Amino acid sequence: MKKLLSGYSKKAGLVPGSIVHVGDRKAERPKITLIKYNRDRFEEKVVEKVEDCFDGDQDVVTWINIDGIHQVDIIEKIGAEYGLHPLVMEDILHTDQRPKVEDYESYLFIVLKMVWYDDIENDIRLEQVSLILGEDFVVSFQEAEGDTFSAVRERLRTGKGRIRSMDASYLAYALMDSIVDNYFLVLEQVSEIIEALEDRLIENPVSETLEEIHDLKKEIIYFRKSVWPLRDVISSLERSDSPLIKDTTLVYLKDIYDHTIRVVESIETYRDIITGVMDLYLSSISNRMNEVMKTLTIIATIFIPLTFVTGLYGMNFEYMPELKYEWGYPAVWIVILLMSASMFVYFRKKKWL
Amino acid sequence: MKKLLSGYSKKAGLVPGSIVHVGDRKAERPKITLIKYNRDRFEEKVVEKVEDCFDGDQDVVTWINIDGIHQVDIIEKIGAEYGLHPLVMEDILHTDQRPKVEDYESYLFIVLKMVWYDDIENDIRLEQVSLILGEDFVVSFQEAEGDTFSAVRERLRTGKGRIRSMDASYLAYALMDSIVDNYFLVLEQVSEIIEALEDRLIENPVSETLEEIHDLKKEIIYFRKSVWPLRDVISSLERSDSPLIKDTTLVYLKDIYDHTIRVVESIETYRDIITGVMDLYLSSISNRMNEVMKTLTIIATIFIPLTFVTGLYGMNFEYMPELKYEWGYPAVWIVILLMSASMFVYFRKKKWL
Amino acid sequence: MKKLLSGYSKKAGLVPGSIVHVGDRKAERPKITLIKYNRDRFEEKVVEKVEDCFDGDQDVVTWINIDGIHQVDIIEKIGAEYGLHPLVMEDILHTDQRPKVEDYESYLFIVLKMVWYDDIENDIRLEQVSLILGEDFVVSFQEAEGDTFSAVRERLRTGKGRIRSMDASYLAYALMDSIVDNYFLVLEQVSEIIEALEDRLIENPVSETLEEIHDLKKEIIYFRKSVWPLRDVISSLERSDSPLIKDTTLVYLKDIYDHTIRVVESIETYRDIITGVMDLYLSSISNRMNEVMKTLTIIATIFIPLTFVTGLYGMNFEYMPELKYEWGYPAVWIVILLMSASMFVYFRKKKWL
Amino acid sequence: MKKLLSGYSKKAGLVPGSIVHVGDRKAERPKITLIKYNRDRFEEKVVEKVEDCFDGDQDVVTWINIDGIHQVDIIEKIGAEYGLHPLVMEDILHTDQRPKVEDYESYLFIVLKMVWYDDIENDIRLEQVSLILGEDFVVSFQEAEGDTFSAVRERLRTGKGRIRSMDASYLAYALMDSIVDNYFLVLEQVSEIIEALEDRLIENPVSETLEEIHDLKKEIIYFRKSVWPLRDVISSLERSDSPLIKDTTLVYLKDIYDHTIRVVESIETYRDIITGVMDLYLSSISNRMNEVMKTLTIIATIFIPLTFVTGLYGMNFEYMPELKYEWGYPAVWIVILLMSASMFVYFRKKKWL
Amino acid sequence: MKKLLSGYSKKAGLVPGSIVHVGDRKAERPKITLIKYNRDRFEEKVVEKVEDCFDGDQDVVTWINIDGIHQVDIIEKIGAEYGLHPLVMEDILHTDQRPKVEDYESYLFIVLKMVWYDDIENDIRLEQVSLILGEDFVVSFQEAEGDTFSAVRERLRTGKGRIRSMDASYLAYALMDSIVDNYFLVLEQVSEIIEALEDRLIENPVSETLEEIHDLKKEIIYFRKSVWPLRDVISSLERSDSPLIKDTTLVYLKDIYDHTIRVVESIETYRDIITGVMDLYLSSISNRMNEVMKTLTIIATIFIPLTFVTGLYGMNFEYMPELKYEWGYPAVWIVILLMSASMFVYFRKKKWL
Ligand SMILES: [Mg+2]
Ligand SMILES: [Mg+2]
Ligand SMILES: [Mg+2]
Ligand SMILES: [Mg+2]
Ligand SMILES: [Mg+2]
Ligand SMILES: [Mg+2]
Ligand SMILES: [Mg+2]
Ligand SMILES: [Mg+2]
Ligand SMILES: [Mg+2]
Ligand SMILES: [Mg+2]
Ligand SMILES: [Mg+2]
Ligand SMILES: [Mg+2]
Ligand SMILES: [Mg+2]
Ligand SMILES: [Mg+2]
Ligand SMILES: [Mg+2]
Ligand SMILES: [Mg+2]
Ligand SMILES: [Mg+2]
Ligand SMILES: [Mg+2]
Ligand SMILES: [Mg+2]
Ligand SMILES: [Mg+2]
Ligand SMILES: [Mg+2]
Ligand SMILES: [Mg+2]
Ligand SMILES: [Mg+2]
Ligand SMILES: [Mg+2]
Ligand SMILES: [Mg+2]
Ligand SMILES: [Mg+2]
Ligand SMILES: [Mg+2]
Ligand SMILES: [Mg+2]
Ligand SMILES: [Mg+2]
Ligand SMILES: [Mg+2]
Ligand SMILES: [Mg+2]
Repeated sequence: MKKLLSGYSKKAGLVPGSIVHVGDRKAERPKITLIKYNRDRFEEKVVEKVEDCFDGDQDVVTWINIDGIHQVDIIEKIGAEYGLHPLVMEDILHTDQRPKVEDYESYLFIVLKMVWYDDIENDIRLEQVSLILGEDFVVSFQEAEGDTFSAVRERLRTGKGRIRSMDASYLAYALMDSIVDNYFLVLEQVSEIIEALEDRLIENPVSETLEEIHDLKKEIIYFRKSVWPLRDVISSLERSDSPLIKDTTLVYLKDIYDHTIRVVESIETYRDIITGVMDLYLSSISNRMNEVMKTLTIIATIFIPLTFVTGLYGMNFEYMPELKYEWGYPAVWIVILLMSASMFVYFRKKKWL
Repeated sequence: MKKLLSGYSKKAGLVPGSIVHVGDRKAERPKITLIKYNRDRFEEKVVEKVEDCFDGDQDVVTWINIDGIHQVDIIEKIGAEYGLHPLVMEDILHTDQRPKVEDYESYLFIVLKMVWYDDIENDIRLEQVSLILGEDFVVSFQEAEGDTFSAVRERLRTGKGRIRSMDASYLAYALMDSIVDNYFLVLEQVSEIIEALEDRLIENPVSETLEEIHDLKKEIIYFRKSVWPLRDVISSLERSDSPLIKDTTLVYLKDIYDHTIRVVESIETYRDIITGVMDLYLSSISNRMNEVMKTLTIIATIFIPLTFVTGLYGMNFEYMPELKYEWGYPAVWIVILLMSASMFVYFRKKKWL
Repeated sequence: MKKLLSGYSKKAGLVPGSIVHVGDRKAERPKITLIKYNRDRFEEKVVEKVEDCFDGDQDVVTWINIDGIHQVDIIEKIGAEYGLHPLVMEDILHTDQRPKVEDYESYLFIVLKMVWYDDIENDIRLEQVSLILGEDFVVSFQEAEGDTFSAVRERLRTGKGRIRSMDASYLAYALMDSIVDNYFLVLEQVSEIIEALEDRLIENPVSETLEEIHDLKKEIIYFRKSVWPLRDVISSLERSDSPLIKDTTLVYLKDIYDHTIRVVESIETYRDIITGVMDLYLSSISNRMNEVMKTLTIIATIFIPLTFVTGLYGMNFEYMPELKYEWGYPAVWIVILLMSASMFVYFRKKKWL
Repeated sequence: MKKLLSGYSKKAGLVPGSIVHVGDRKAERPKITLIKYNRDRFEEKVVEKVEDCFDGDQDVVTWINIDGIHQVDIIEKIGAEYGLHPLVMEDILHTDQRPKVEDYESYLFIVLKMVWYDDIENDIRLEQVSLILGEDFVVSFQEAEGDTFSAVRERLRTGKGRIRSMDASYLAYALMDSIVDNYFLVLEQVSEIIEALEDRLIENPVSETLEEIHDLKKEIIYFRKSVWPLRDVISSLERSDSPLIKDTTLVYLKDIYDHTIRVVESIETYRDIITGVMDLYLSSISNRMNEVMKTLTIIATIFIPLTFVTGLYGMNFEYMPELKYEWGYPAVWIVILLMSASMFVYFRKKKWL
Repeated sequence: MKKLLSGYSKKAGLVPGSIVHVGDRKAERPKITLIKYNRDRFEEKVVEKVEDCFDGDQDVVTWINIDGIHQVDIIEKIGAEYGLHPLVMEDILHTDQRPKVEDYESYLFIVLKMVWYDDIENDIRLEQVSLILGEDFVVSFQEAEGDTFSAVRERLRTGKGRIRSMDASYLAYALMDSIVDNYFLVLEQVSEIIEALEDRLIENPVSETLEEIHDLKKEIIYFRKSVWPLRDVISSLERSDSPLIKDTTLVYLKDIYDHTIRVVESIETYRDIITGVMDLYLSSISNRMNEVMKTLTIIATIFIPLTFVTGLYGMNFEYMPELKYEWGYPAVWIVILLMSASMFVYFRKKKWL
């Protein structure tokens, strides 16, 4: 799990709007990808310097994607080109924003969380994606390479569907949609993990299971925290009167809103279920303990009295008449068998056996 | 329980509005049933090709019911005939929608969950039913054959009640009403299961009961998830200004809204009660454990000291005067009886016996 | 506790608005009581046939009370006389409605739950009361004989208070007020039961107490379910613009609204307290178990080592020098006493004794 | 704790608005205090008959305080003098009202709960205070003598602060303010009790602590119930358009509103903390039990096997070669010491020692 | 943790608006710092008497900071100079206010809580900061020296960023922003404490951990209480129509609102997680207990029956044929080994070993 809060000790006390990157500093250079397209044209290239993206091409939609935000000058150059507010640039760099949308008239600033499941570490991973949506451009900032946008790129390349004939706000929608679609994949994996947990803990509740439940619970809490505000983001985009959101995009935003609600409801459902799983774990432990105690009690309550009986005739008193009788020893055996049998009957009646 | 989420790995990355069926692929052909009626006329047939439904008959209400949505071309043909939006067709096929209503002016798109209780698997089963309500037609899509509509069909056939003289929106209402009525049947069964659980666990709390409680809890959570949004669906139909909902239907929608609230409240009640049942289970386990421990403690605290006494006179010291006395052995018996009696009195006072 | 849901299997699939009684079928005939009054006049009689109530008397308020709704023709005749909607008649008969008010212009349809405490079965009992309030009449339908209205009848007979000089909406208010006043009596009894439970379980937490707590919790849940919607009922009556509610009645409705809120808050309070009682029970069980375990541990840890010591000198080795010493036996006694004493000191320090 | 509900069995079935006192009937006569003041004048006296208060003095603010409401004729005479509605008089006498304000145009009717901490019984005590605020008078009704108003009286007597130059609504404010200020004193005591509880239960969790926690929890629940509605009371006074509330009083009402919110938030905080204290108690019990069990297990697992060994050589078989060997007895001692030592190492590794 | 409530016993009963300091009385004199600045000028000095601050300088923003509020005359002089309402002065001195903003037209009164983490006592510390924002001045009152404003001072001194060219409302914003930024530092430390707790308790759940969890839970509850109302404070500043808040400041208030929501959500998240940590602790204790019980049960159920067998042949009956047989002793050994082996197999099957 990415830490919830970090970088504040580095940043506290700076001028508000300070453009400082607070994540892990990375060695390699951010990767800048430029895509331009319209109904008839498609162009895609990786550029070295961000200035190469600003060539004033007309009648196309421009999509600049930045993988890696640790080089502040790139953000500053884009900021200068598109007139971004210092607070916007600060939020792009400070990657613990909650999802939000801000309307700066000439552009919309949208923050989202890309989420995926890391099968190796068994963790839900989060990455902040910041979108700048302008009249005819989208700039997307990611923390690191690797995203959920490949299908969008493929549709742009092949011209499948309606995306090439639509405007920049549809592109922004398509990116958000691919992010939200990915949430369902993560949910599907969470659902499988929960089912595996349930199966395991009924069979054999070990303490590792407990840690796993706690870990999953925390990850779901963080996941929820990243998705919950999305409802308001999408619905304020939908109800927004910004001319940057074209009418043709509205019906699609409604669809994405629908998906977001389903994601949120599923997360709530999983929270409920994982709470139930915790109860199940605790009850299984109790059941186990009960079984252990019953075993101990049965053995002890049968043999402790018997041992007392044998102890009795192990005493060395000179005057103990029973010891002389020939039938003394068999009589003790009969007593022992009778005591055992009555205990057995008693435990049966109590349903302990 | 139907899985909460599925098919996303198959679908992720497609064009939004892609018409792909994500359920289990089924071998047999979907069954298409056509019903046409007005006050004077009633016609019902199973058609082979969906095109046979589009004959432009006037002055009748047309109800096309599709059992099985795994053949995408049928949905596409209906979509083409009635001008359905690609996102609508996508939602018909992707059967994990939450209940909703969408107004596309020339038609309303309504998604509901049909719920029934599977007595064999002891599970609450869900099936998505999508309704397209137009000026004079209703199209209903189901995942598989078998539904709760037989009474509606019967009323159409026999002309009982007011249904034959009403319009398409009343038909849509009647279908929704039959779905909601069925929720009560499921609730009745849930109520019986809970009562059976309560009886069993007070008598004998075994760990299978625990799994059953957990299982039922989960099923109620999923049931709730399918019914909860229905309130908004019905109330937005009621408050809708769509001309497709006739004024004569409104009072009936109000009645159905009433039913929906009762279903939702009953589910909440059952959630509360099942939580109480879980507590009851845990307390029963604790009570049991207590009883086991008391048995052990009584036996052990009576006999362990006695065994010590016998051990004492089982020692082989040459110089142990008590062993020589004639009254030594009877004296030990008196000690033993006194110790037992005082223990017995102690346990009585403690109310352990 | 009356079952939450019943009769659905009998009714499912009927025409909406079907007038079928779903409760237990009763042998005896419903009792119909007719009261007519104004400032100067009062007339009360039990009538045989419901038609005897419809004699078009002017300038009086007519109150028809039906005890028993299992004879459908009576409801139908009243429905015909006063023009009741089929859905209203259905709801009168189907007695698991939630409290509600519906405005049908010429009459208001009000559903309430009468609640009382059954001292013999130790149960909170519910009965549906449906009121039809017209311009100059009130019809009240009850499931069975016996109600909380005797004081209202008495005031009508004797002409005490303002009731005889008021209109039909005041009569409806008076009936509702007597129902709500009775809720406080039930609450008072619930409060006494909780206090009795608390006293008992601190003294001696037995498993029957557990069942009682669970039972009471459930009854409070059902009681709450019947009262909760009442707030909306009363407040929508208060804010209603129906001419059937006279202005002079409004201040009384406000008073009843006040009472309803107090009932609801008291129920919530009792829910909180009963949850605390459950915790108290569980903790008492834990405390008990602790005491049991301490007893066992004290006895066992004192005597088991001592028994080992005696066992040691009970061995039959030929070469055991201690056995020959004259002071051997007294020395063992000293060891035993020292060990016991140090154990005693240890337990004291641990505060186990 | 004052009982939550009482007197209903005495009152049920009376005419709404019946003026019956439902508290404990008290022998002594209610005490009536009359204060009259303006900027220049101050007069204070205890009157015998309530009629002595109605002398039509002009240009002064009149404050009539009634300690004790068990003599109904006093209430009736005040009701007649100031034109109080029967429902108001009923609510003054029936002292389980929730805090509320009602506007009867010529007067405002305000119900509050005075709360104080009874150090002897260790209980939070409640007393209903009803205020009638008119143009130039305030009447306050209390259940018994003793209140929080002494500072207000003192300020009136000495003319300190602005109170003497203000109108009747400021007096009403001053009385409410003194009641709310007292809530903080109660909260301070609750806070000290909680801290004392925490200290005690970590040291030594006995079952009396449990009862105390439960008792405190209940008292906080009742306290909350009495304070919660106050927010609405004060804010509806603030937003009221009644000419009885002078503009100069408004800023003071805002201050009192502030205080009320702080009281409510503190109560919620204490509820949370007391829940945590309960958890702490339960965990302490578990920890204790754990320690007890560990002691038992250590002793038993060390000595039970050793006792077996001694038992072995206590057998009386004729042919047991070990018994003849000279080193037999020392060898057993070595076995015993080795077994004990390895157990000790095992428990150390497990961190049980 | 600072006590939640204090000083009420000292203050109760005073005139509302009484200017009395209720904190700990401190010996040293409050420190008064005066800063004046505009685009071109910057002046900073510590003044002895508060009157030295009121020199009527024009065209500058004046910031008076008071560290220590225990000398009431300073507050009174500032109150007189700037026309503060008595209730405002009372709230400055009574430092348990909840965060709030009040508009007195010529000035805004803002109360905030400064929060920091005390590494030595391991506590979250709170300090009330009251701000008076006027047309061209800000007065800040703190309980003691030491604050989070050093970065703001530094920016004012060096003229970095836009602060020197902005008005007084921007200064107020900058102070609030520095306070809110500090919340993140506290959250970061809370997050580290929780992670440390988790690690420790899975390894070895001791009862000190329990106290730490309870302590942290309480501190988070108090922290939450201080931050929660801040959302409303900032948003009512944002939506305020006071001319004292300049339009240029609004976008910054929006940014701070964003931060506040993140702080609140993080606190909620930590509350959820700490609840999970408590569950983890309790389950670890249960697991531990289980392990202890299993050890006891295994040892006892193996050796108690064996000891019975040895006891049997330790009896002193004269007629016990087995004792004479040469193979008697080896046979007992075989019985003992068989019994041990079958117990071992049984425990393996049960997965207790
Ligand atoms: Mg993890
Ligand atoms: Mg900032
Ligand atoms: Mg920001
Ligand atoms: Mg993980
Ligand atoms: Mg990336
Ligand atoms: Mg999608
Ligand atoms: Mg969709
Ligand atoms: Mg299942
Ligand atoms: Mg989609
Ligand atoms: Mg099942
Ligand atoms: Mg079907
Ligand atoms: Mg129905
Ligand atoms: Mg109905
Ligand atoms: Mg019952
Ligand atoms: Mg119906
Ligand atoms: Mg009962
Ligand atoms: Mg009845
Ligand atoms: Mg009443
Ligand atoms: Mg009243
Ligand atoms: Mg008490
Ligand atoms: Mg009343
Ligand atoms: Mg108390
Ligand atoms: Mg009093
Ligand atoms: Mg005050
Ligand atoms: Mg104040
Ligand atoms: Mg602390
Ligand atoms: Mg005050
Ligand atoms: Mg601490
Ligand atoms: Mg300070
Ligand atoms: Mg900041
Ligand atoms: Mg437990």
